[in-house]
Amino acid sequence: MDVVNLDQISFKPLLAEVKAAMINAINQDYFNPSSQHKRGEQAAEVLDAARRSVAGLINAAAAKEVVFTSGGTESVNHAIKGVAMANAEKGKHIVISNIEHNAVIRSVRRLKSMGFRVTSVSVDDKGRVNPRDIAEAITDETILVSIMHSNNETGTIQPIEEIGKITREKKIIFHTDAADSVGVVPIDVQKLGVDLLSFAANTFYGPPGVGGLYIRRGTRIYPLLDGGVQEHNKRAGTENLIGIIGMGAAAQVASARLDQWVAHCQGLKDKLLAELPDAIDEYIINTHPVHSLPNMVSISVQYIEGESVMLMLDDDDIAVSTRSACATGSLRASHVLISIGLSHADAQGTLVVSFGKDTTEDDITKFLTSLKEVVTTLRNISPLYNKVSNSTA
Amino acid sequence: MDVVNLDQISFKPLLAEVKAAMINAINQDYFNPSSQHKRGEQAAEVLDAARRSVAGLINAAAAKEVVFTSGGTESVNHAIKGVAMANAEKGKHIVISNIEHNAVIRSVRRLKSMGFRVTSVSVDDKGRVNPRDIAEAITDETILVSIMHSNNETGTIQPIEEIGKITREKKIIFHTDAADSVGVVPIDVQKLGVDLLSFAANTFYGPPGVGGLYIRRGTRIYPLLDGGVQEHNKRAGTENLIGIIGMGAAAQVASARLDQWVAHCQGLKDKLLAELPDAIDEYIINTHPVHSLPNMVSISVQYIEGESVMLMLDDDDIAVSTRSACATGSLRASHVLISIGLSHADAQGTLVVSFGKDTTEDDITKFLTSLKEVVTTLRNISPLYNKVSNSTA
Repeated sequence: MDVVNLDQISFKPLLAEVKAAMINAINQDYFNPSSQHKRGEQAAEVLDAARRSVAGLINAAAAKEVVFTSGGTESVNHAIKGVAMANAEKGKHIVISNIEHNAVIRSVRRLKSMGFRVTSVSVDDKGRVNPRDIAEAITDETILVSIMHSNNETGTIQPIEEIGKITREKKIIFHTDAADSVGVVPIDVQKLGVDLLSFAANTFYGPPGVGGLYIRRGTRIYPLLDGGVQEHNKRAGTENLIGIIGMGAAAQVASARLDQWVAHCQGLKDKLLAELPDAIDEYIINTHPVHSLPNMVSISVQYIEGESVMLMLDDDDIAVSTRSACATGSLRASHVLISIGLSHADAQGTLVVSFGKDTTEDDITKFLTSLKEVVTTLRNISPLYNKVSNSTA
Repeated sequence: MDVVNLDQISFKPLLAEVKAAMINAINQDYFNPSSQHKRGEQAAEVLDAARRSVAGLINAAAAKEVVFTSGGTESVNHAIKGVAMANAEKGKHIVISNIEHNAVIRSVRRLKSMGFRVTSVSVDDKGRVNPRDIAEAITDETILVSIMHSNNETGTIQPIEEIGKITREKKIIFHTDAADSVGVVPIDVQKLGVDLLSFAANTFYGPPGVGGLYIRRGTRIYPLLDGGVQEHNKRAGTENLIGIIGMGAAAQVASARLDQWVAHCQGLKDKLLAELPDAIDEYIINTHPVHSLPNMVSISVQYIEGESVMLMLDDDDIAVSTRSACATGSLRASHVLISIGLSHADAQGTLVVSFGKDTTEDDITKFLTSLKEVVTTLRNISPLYNKVSNSTA
């Protein structure tokens, strides 16, 4: 099944280097890195090498500031719940934004039921947080600020560095969910001034279900997984060594090729945005014109259902998504799109088009051609569209 | 490096079928199973097939009672913390035993700091819990009983079915940590009468860092990882599909070959126990003579350090462990061995010899030959041993 994958926010194909590294790991049958005999030590060395590669990609000061997890969601849960539980005596107030991923929103909801208070800051109509709003939301009770680096539905990038200056000055722990940024745009944890940063390997063509949490040295945080002494006592459990080796390989390649990937994706994004008006009319671009990821565009096509568009494109062997894959099955309109001011109807008409290093200009052209047909067909049968057309005719 | 792996409690080599399935998964580049287009649906089908295989291995009534996790530790944390948080209004009392894995002990310790009370039941000198003690420990406030199926340091198997009868009658949620049992001995969640059961893929020659939690339909439990709607809303986060496919393949093979594996390991265990007196004297067997796993033996060699034995065997290319790999680096004597009545000195002299389907009689003979030499060498330089020898001479 040869499909044009314009749903790379949900899944990116593995790099050839990642495949080779993982297949080699499978055939090597590495022992448990915690074992003290020489085969265990050999595995521990391999684990450390992967940690150094990943630390390099985000410019961590020390490799041991990287804790391997089962992905972005675990990292976020670890960061938020771990900081909350470890610092509850100092205060029980947390600041987030209205457009965070459900991993953040549902983690703080869990904490709310335990007596924590949460302030959720609103965003402007392009989905950006104003750092001044963060400064104002912080109280004497605040122990954590968690603002995502980029949004998984719109691609809009937040002013993390500015927020980092505020949190540092006020000595408050700052977490950023960078699950859609690490490996897509340059990320430097030291420059950003964050204490915690969540990321996922598949975002940079590594395996799904593998990720990491950057924990700045000295940050007060409890483990989410209690048990053994793995990961420098920060995350118990026998390591997913095969997956971690895959992430290490992906990080190494990403470090070397990131500039090239950014330029390639930006070219495709520019093409898509430039040619979209020739394909369809009456749509809204939800992605920030300047501060946004190079690899995705969120388009709300008015008067029709995004899900119908997605399914009809699927018939043409083009994969896109209507929203976060994590929220599939939920019938509610996206909280992100409602937060940036979209109507429920426009939110339901949203497509997320996301691409990667192997996407071609031809793929974008195919998408636009197919989209034009699909939108025409759907609008012809849309009572809402016909009503609007008639009234403006 | 060709090593005799008698540390299979820490790491088992992957089955050929597991390697093939994982390599195929890597090459297939499956999409995100949550995506709604056809490539997403294809991935969802693969995920479901793995779930059915794993459910079959533990005889779950429905495949969706199996939740995929990042391993035994996550499963245990999920079970204990998830039940505690979801049932706190009913009561805040939990019953465990003194010999649980650190994942259990540290999870309940975390809960203690949140106001939960824990009763830890002692075990007899072969490490077995008395079901009557569990019945007596249960109060009106008890919301959870968590007793491991088999112990990872001694191999002793607990009377889970009898405890299950008690918890069912008293309508209390019952979790068993079966991380060292599933795939080693037959496990039937329906027969055991447990509500929750934790397991890990590497125990049955699947990949490390992959596991599952059986959650009986209707069990009141919160997720540990909050976020997306994956795993029927029970465990958020993009799935480690490559690892899960590996676990599915391992479960399928284990279901077919378990009887054969049990017989093979039992034969090696019998041989080891029968020939050990010819190799060394003055040792204690910590493994229960009847109720224990077929694939391991815990031996406390008196008057010497287990770690020295382990390192000298390692020089002979024989891998064994002195205790749980998860506790490596901890200097304290094993709580499990102290709980069954060993002195600190004897606990420090403990070796765990664990084997698998590929272990040969020759491996056992090599181990015994090497052990004999090592123990002789170490006792010759042991002041404690010479003192005891002289006083009894």
